[in-house]
Amino acid sequence: MFKLYYAPATCALASHITLAEAGADYATERIYFKVNQQNSPDYLKINPKGRVPALVTDRGILTETPAMLAYIAQSFPQAGLAPLDDPFAFAQVQSFNSYLCATLHVAHAHKLRGARWATEESSFADMKRMIPKSVGACFALIERNMLRGPWVMGESYTICDPYLYTVALWLEGDGVDLVSLPKVADHRKRMSERPAVQKVLAEENA
Amino acid sequence: MFKLYYAPATCALASHITLAEAGADYATERIYFKVNQQNSPDYLKINPKGRVPALVTDRGILTETPAMLAYIAQSFPQAGLAPLDDPFAFAQVQSFNSYLCATLHVAHAHKLRGARWATEESSFADMKRMIPKSVGACFALIERNMLRGPWVMGESYTICDPYLYTVALWLEGDGVDLVSLPKVADHRKRMSERPAVQKVLAEENA
Repeated sequence: MFKLYYAPATCALASHITLAEAGADYATERIYFKVNQQNSPDYLKINPKGRVPALVTDRGILTETPAMLAYIAQSFPQAGLAPLDDPFAFAQVQSFNSYLCATLHVAHAHKLRGARWATEESSFADMKRMIPKSVGACFALIERNMLRGPWVMGESYTICDPYLYTVALWLEGDGVDLVSLPKVADHRKRMSERPAVQKVLAEENA
Repeated sequence: MFKLYYAPATCALASHITLAEAGADYATERIYFKVNQQNSPDYLKINPKGRVPALVTDRGILTETPAMLAYIAQSFPQAGLAPLDDPFAFAQVQSFNSYLCATLHVAHAHKLRGARWATEESSFADMKRMIPKSVGACFALIERNMLRGPWVMGESYTICDPYLYTVALWLEGDGVDLVSLPKVADHRKRMSERPAVQKVLAEENA
């Protein structure tokens, strides 16, 4: 039994979809950013970083999306969500997810989370102006060099796919033109048709 | 046979040390940032992201430190560099490395790489002023919640240790006071005494 702490429209969606795809027995609890619940004393006991997602397991609590995704894949090998028997192919999956976590998500975070790295309003405005370009460059690299199609790793659906889908939902809000990203747009459409994705989105948006 | 592309004083050191600790057969090639070699046409064929590290293997090229470290650990299981037979313990290793990659390293990068996220000199200066606080907060969390001691994961040396050591070498340059970080300081000292670390540093500084 797992419990996922999440907030809608955050990277927690990737783990949420993956739990559903794996057929895991799980519950969810929403954290309300509007009241800064992620920094409440109770939640900081769950995740001292004050962020979502966090995954409560029988062994303890996990944070960080790439680690959680690989853990879910390893916990449900029958779901075939990662090439667990091929270390190089597994490393390629991990490399893709690490790029989303450390480069793409970080670029996106400069739109609303500039206070993590600066203090002046003028800096925040500067960061916001760059979002279409910086996030756009990440997606252009994915389109050109990383997304094999139809799924990220080619013919096999893996834990890269819900993660790419999650960050691709931010494209319009970040002012990135989808016309230049046909493979990413096609991937997002194909993901949106999966029953697990529809079930999870309905739950998060309820 | 592996080939590691690196630059001194970068996060590539973590993979370099791990290759040495694993007893891997490897060569290295230095990339010169001063002449922007990381964005040269030849290097962009190796890594289209224009960054180090990159690891050339018999199967293809890998990038992203967390993925490379896990791959080296899986390729040399006899070296015992990660709890490969325990998915939860492995996920804890991955969670730690993901935090270094996506939060700590990102905070540090705002000192010299502000142009990734903004365009104005005033923004870069603002970002630089925040480095001691933002990087310091990451290390405070590690000191308080993440570094079990004597090694990151406790009694066993893992791929978390060379990665923490690598980023801890940036502390003085980032203006973070080591006095408030006794466990991190102790870890760095213990790492510096390992033969593999001394060998690799001698090579990178030659």
